Amino acid sequence: MKLRGNTGKVQELPWRRRKTVPVMVGPLRVGGGAPVVVESMTKTDTRDAAATLKQVRALERAGCELVRIAVPDMAAARALGHVVQRSRIPVVADVHFDHRLALAALEEGVAGIRLNPGNIADRRKVEAVVRSAQEKRASIRVGVNAGSLSKTAAARFADNAVHEAMVESALEHVSILEKLDFRDVLISVKSSDVATTVRAYRTLSSAVRYPLHVGITEAGTLLRGSVVSAVGVAVLLSEGIGDAVRVSLAASPVKEVEVGFLILGALGLRETGPVVICCPTCGRCEIDVQRIAREVERRTRSLRTPLAIAVMGCGVNGPGEARQADVGIAGGKGEGLLFSRGRIVGKVREADMVETLLERVRLMAEEEAP
Amino acid sequence: MKLRGNTGKVQELPWRRRKTVPVMVGPLRVGGGAPVVVESMTKTDTRDAAATLKQVRALERAGCELVRIAVPDMAAARALGHVVQRSRIPVVADVHFDHRLALAALEEGVAGIRLNPGNIADRRKVEAVVRSAQEKRASIRVGVNAGSLSKTAAARFADNAVHEAMVESALEHVSILEKLDFRDVLISVKSSDVATTVRAYRTLSSAVRYPLHVGITEAGTLLRGSVVSAVGVAVLLSEGIGDAVRVSLAASPVKEVEVGFLILGALGLRETGPVVICCPTCGRCEIDVQRIAREVERRTRSLRTPLAIAVMGCGVNGPGEARQADVGIAGGKGEGLLFSRGRIVGKVREADMVETLLERVRLMAEEEAP
Repeated sequence: MKLRGNTGKVQELPWRRRKTVPVMVGPLRVGGGAPVVVESMTKTDTRDAAATLKQVRALERAGCELVRIAVPDMAAARALGHVVQRSRIPVVADVHFDHRLALAALEEGVAGIRLNPGNIADRRKVEAVVRSAQEKRASIRVGVNAGSLSKTAAARFADNAVHEAMVESALEHVSILEKLDFRDVLISVKSSDVATTVRAYRTLSSAVRYPLHVGITEAGTLLRGSVVSAVGVAVLLSEGIGDAVRVSLAASPVKEVEVGFLILGALGLRETGPVVICCPTCGRCEIDVQRIAREVERRTRSLRTPLAIAVMGCGVNGPGEARQADVGIAGGKGEGLLFSRGRIVGKVREADMVETLLERVRLMAEEEAP
Repeated sequence: MKLRGNTGKVQELPWRRRKTVPVMVGPLRVGGGAPVVVESMTKTDTRDAAATLKQVRALERAGCELVRIAVPDMAAARALGHVVQRSRIPVVADVHFDHRLALAALEEGVAGIRLNPGNIADRRKVEAVVRSAQEKRASIRVGVNAGSLSKTAAARFADNAVHEAMVESALEHVSILEKLDFRDVLISVKSSDVATTVRAYRTLSSAVRYPLHVGITEAGTLLRGSVVSAVGVAVLLSEGIGDAVRVSLAASPVKEVEVGFLILGALGLRETGPVVICCPTCGRCEIDVQRIAREVERRTRSLRTPLAIAVMGCGVNGPGEARQADVGIAGGKGEGLLFSRGRIVGKVREADMVETLLERVRLMAEEEAP
């Protein structure tokens, strides 16, 4: 697999994605070699369709490719239609236990449902949901979480084999769908513990070819949750496991999408917009790197052109990083050398650095625009 | 390797650390199976010894185990003594190009230096530094960064083989030290690109047994830098590579330490203090999980007892996660079930959740105190 890295140069990646069969979630292809999908979930009261749609719009703007919406009751299911009709990205209904909610969500036109059929005791009810999904060409994600493992599944395994219990439970749910000849299946097996999650996905990935939705569940608040998610998801993706990513944060869902793309961008699996490479600063630094980097990052966030922008504080790594970036500054005392595509093109005073970098970035973004 | 995970249960980790030889950095053992070290670097003007010591103190409080300090000139080298004598953690001097700065730093009593001997043209000067380090039992870290690769090293390799150029350069520096019979060596080969960094460390790790300091250089501002660092460091550690970690952030060095421990904690490689597991919330949630989780996280930050605290918003994963945690709440409408070590011990109103959790945590921390 070849993609452009930070530096805009084509490079071979040191990881290779495992082969899965493609499954369509509405118009979105997941698995089968398609780019790893970034998804999120609304956090509004689903019954408040206006608030939910507003959050879906924010997610669309952030680049979210698939949005899941919880359906805890019939009023929530009925509110889905308003959102589904207006959303620019496929909507998946998150349903637990009650097959009528799944049927109602499918009636409202969702592209997929997340449902564990083994949790619905009556097989005729499961069959009704599956038939409806087949008719409407909706996918089903079987999503097993360590926190909601059935007691019977958990009881068969020791505490140190939660990952095996999760995989066995997922495969049981999937086999119910397969018996009904339903194959538009995606699977996830998440724990809040990274080691357990990685072991579960390793086992699952050798057992099935369905596309896998990956993530660490209940990862935490913004910074902790982002780091823990990055750790877990990166280990999986470096082993080729994962076709869609959800970063679960106790924070705005827009942040979940941003962090999802940061993870995929860092691994070279998705192109992102401008990336600001900046030194951590040390006793050598003579310009305010943090301020300049934050400002440039904030003001280039809406751009989609993959560009590397370097903001460096001294002469040790500064000229090298600035030269390798698309545009960069290697700072000295109150001023810096400006690099553009590998060449020194001028000197800039510290006060002018932000505007100078932004101007160059804008020009490059225009050049690259289709 | 067995460590207690989030849930306090002993579990086998799905990664195994590669064997390296131990090297002492002052009293701190790095490599050879010692716990992965978390280090950082001061960002003050090194010549301002009081400001630098103040930052070292903040790093000590955050759990930092080794602090590096840039030595750009002789005044900075002389200021080191004041800090070295008062620091509770080993101090490493970061020196480039000028061997006199290394000699002066060693005179001031640093536990190690970071120095690339190949960048000092005169071998007698290198020898003087090595002899002094030997006498003072100081270690030397060879640290090659993509941004400061010598032109000759870079020129021998194509653009897509920067990782090979970094490894070759590092091995050249190391061989200079080995010829002088110096073996207290640590190595790093960092790029701001994760794929390049991973490829470099994979190659390096098969070539040498010296302990490896790992990280992604110039990773970025707080959130981006944390995610990119987590991605790169986690992939390496999951392959068993890495004996010390530096998270490079254009942010407070205290954050570098926090994120370093978050990464190691997520991988189960280091025990950290209390961990707040919380759901991302969705349309089902009826309590303010974000606020409660952030508040509990903030007020347990100074504790060192490894405890899992669950703050969950609904009945789907809530009871399971809360039961598996040391203490947890599974919220419903305005109230929640309180779990302690797997059992339901009461009901709590939303307004009392923070204080109730904190009280339980304090009691557990006291029980576990040595």
